[in-house]
Amino acid sequence: MTNTNSHAPELLVHSWFNTEKPLLLAGLRGRVVVLVAFQVLCANSVAGGIPQAQRVYETFAPEDVAVIGLHATFEHHRAFNPAVLKAFIQEYRLRFPIALDQPNDAGPIPLTMERYAMRGTPSLVLIDRLGLVRKHAFGPVDDLRLGAEIGALTQVAAEAALPRSSAA
Amino acid sequence: MTNTNSHAPELLVHSWFNTEKPLLLAGLRGRVVVLVAFQVLCANSVAGGIPQAQRVYETFAPEDVAVIGLHATFEHHRAFNPAVLKAFIQEYRLRFPIALDQPNDAGPIPLTMERYAMRGTPSLVLIDRLGLVRKHAFGPVDDLRLGAEIGALTQVAAEAALPRSSAA
Amino acid sequence: MTNTNSHAPELLVHSWFNTEKPLLLAGLRGRVVVLVAFQVLCANSVAGGIPQAQRVYETFAPEDVAVIGLHATFEHHRAFNPAVLKAFIQEYRLRFPIALDQPNDAGPIPLTMERYAMRGTPSLVLIDRLGLVRKHAFGPVDDLRLGAEIGALTQVAAEAALPRSSAA
Amino acid sequence: MTNTNSHAPELLVHSWFNTEKPLLLAGLRGRVVVLVAFQVLCANSVAGGIPQAQRVYETFAPEDVAVIGLHATFEHHRAFNPAVLKAFIQEYRLRFPIALDQPNDAGPIPLTMERYAMRGTPSLVLIDRLGLVRKHAFGPVDDLRLGAEIGALTQVAAEAALPRSSAA
Repeated sequence: MTNTNSHAPELLVHSWFNTEKPLLLAGLRGRVVVLVAFQVLCANSVAGGIPQAQRVYETFAPEDVAVIGLHATFEHHRAFNPAVLKAFIQEYRLRFPIALDQPNDAGPIPLTMERYAMRGTPSLVLIDRLGLVRKHAFGPVDDLRLGAEIGALTQVAAEAALPRSSAA
Repeated sequence: MTNTNSHAPELLVHSWFNTEKPLLLAGLRGRVVVLVAFQVLCANSVAGGIPQAQRVYETFAPEDVAVIGLHATFEHHRAFNPAVLKAFIQEYRLRFPIALDQPNDAGPIPLTMERYAMRGTPSLVLIDRLGLVRKHAFGPVDDLRLGAEIGALTQVAAEAALPRSSAA
Repeated sequence: MTNTNSHAPELLVHSWFNTEKPLLLAGLRGRVVVLVAFQVLCANSVAGGIPQAQRVYETFAPEDVAVIGLHATFEHHRAFNPAVLKAFIQEYRLRFPIALDQPNDAGPIPLTMERYAMRGTPSLVLIDRLGLVRKHAFGPVDDLRLGAEIGALTQVAAEAALPRSSAA
Repeated sequence: MTNTNSHAPELLVHSWFNTEKPLLLAGLRGRVVVLVAFQVLCANSVAGGIPQAQRVYETFAPEDVAVIGLHATFEHHRAFNPAVLKAFIQEYRLRFPIALDQPNDAGPIPLTMERYAMRGTPSLVLIDRLGLVRKHAFGPVDDLRLGAEIGALTQVAAEAALPRSSAA
């Protein structure tokens, strides 16, 4: 896993859903980012990670918290194609931006999953307004605790979190 | 929907999973059959119909009750291929026999779904030991009521249900 | 516990709720009886046994299945009084007949609980149309299996279950 | 209801459970306080407010967040006595401090419930480190949102929240 308090690596994405233009973590600096890695055929993602991501998306103000789904297929490559993800997003009525992780020519683990050293799906990465990884969990995450962690991170003023452009 | 008390039409199947050889309803005469139509990308199937089918499979003796899953894709045809279903069965650890409904050259509704006039997924068809449809439901089915209906049908003696081969 | 297939002992009741007149198992012969012992301060009764009894009551026809709650306090005697049970029934909007078990001058276990040799609450006793105990469970009972057991017992014709009024 | 951002009125308590000595909100200044009003015979308290209070108690560090249960009986007075509450706490294995609201000689609403103008049970009052009411809710409260609100309030440094003892 990425170490907590390390800089969150940028996303490497094959294609995006639910967003008009590609997102970069760099462009979300100043917001807390909740990155939820999932897989459409993973039972724990479908029953846990995905609906939790949707709840986070519906609970927090978008100027404070950005939710990003990351579809990371590390097996069943023959089964998967982007149309499966598109249909899944439609059937589950997901509204938050979702990235299809960039396939890896060198192996089964796609590139973002690899650089975050995720152990599987669902995984949740919590990134603060400065772009630092503050939590990296594999498996179920408790709503109350997650809420507390996001709520605490949002309290750091956005201005304080942003690099000074050098007003001098 | 098929009418209750009508003869259950035979299944038309592209391919089978979790069974060594293809099943025919005709070959299950004498058993109660619980046929659960689902779709891997249908949220209500995944959260409701599929785990219920698995519970039925685990609750009743196989000589009394046969559970059959029917994967019936009537949309998202571009997204689907048999490898998706195979991966789904593996990920969700499903143990009961599952049929992939026969695609329909004449339209989007596959053949078994069409001849049962199913309204969508999940659908549940309950067939008695004689091969008659005794329930045909679209959407959520209550466990207690379903248990009662299956329990009642199993009480009809298997011998009584089977055609006499020739009492003469 | 009472042995399965033994005759269900008659209820010994301090007072009744949700019924105009006291009930006797003898008077329910010909019906399947689901007897659910509970305690208002028992977490598993409140979360499990009680709502399940209510579901059974709502699922089956009253001429086939009678549901009886039995409030059996074997501890917390100082805390309990009949007004607590009355308030509980009102707050939880229970509709099925509920008996307050007869206190026992000789010890903490009330009389019906004692003669059924119940191990605690919640307990569920399933009695067939003839008055025989067919299931006696302590703790959680699965809806699907319970439905199947009730459904099977209801299939025995009521007439067959009743004693002939004149064997002569 | 008490107005948000008003000073949280002190608790008026008949008796305490799960604490060696009585608590005062004044004595908890510097901590976030989650006050959960409930009633042992109220279905929504038992299924929702009480287990949520227990989860909050288990999730946050006691030096940051104090959880207090307030048993507020505004009806069923004949049914209730302190032994009922004691047995309930034992049966539900509650660990956090619980106050029995002070009965009101002038009417059915006990004194703390009255001065907070609570609408019923369950009610949740969130008090910040300075002793100000920051949330006052009647009915179900979402875990994710509650976590966020508590998490945000804990971020205000305890020192900043405490009155300076001598600004001189």
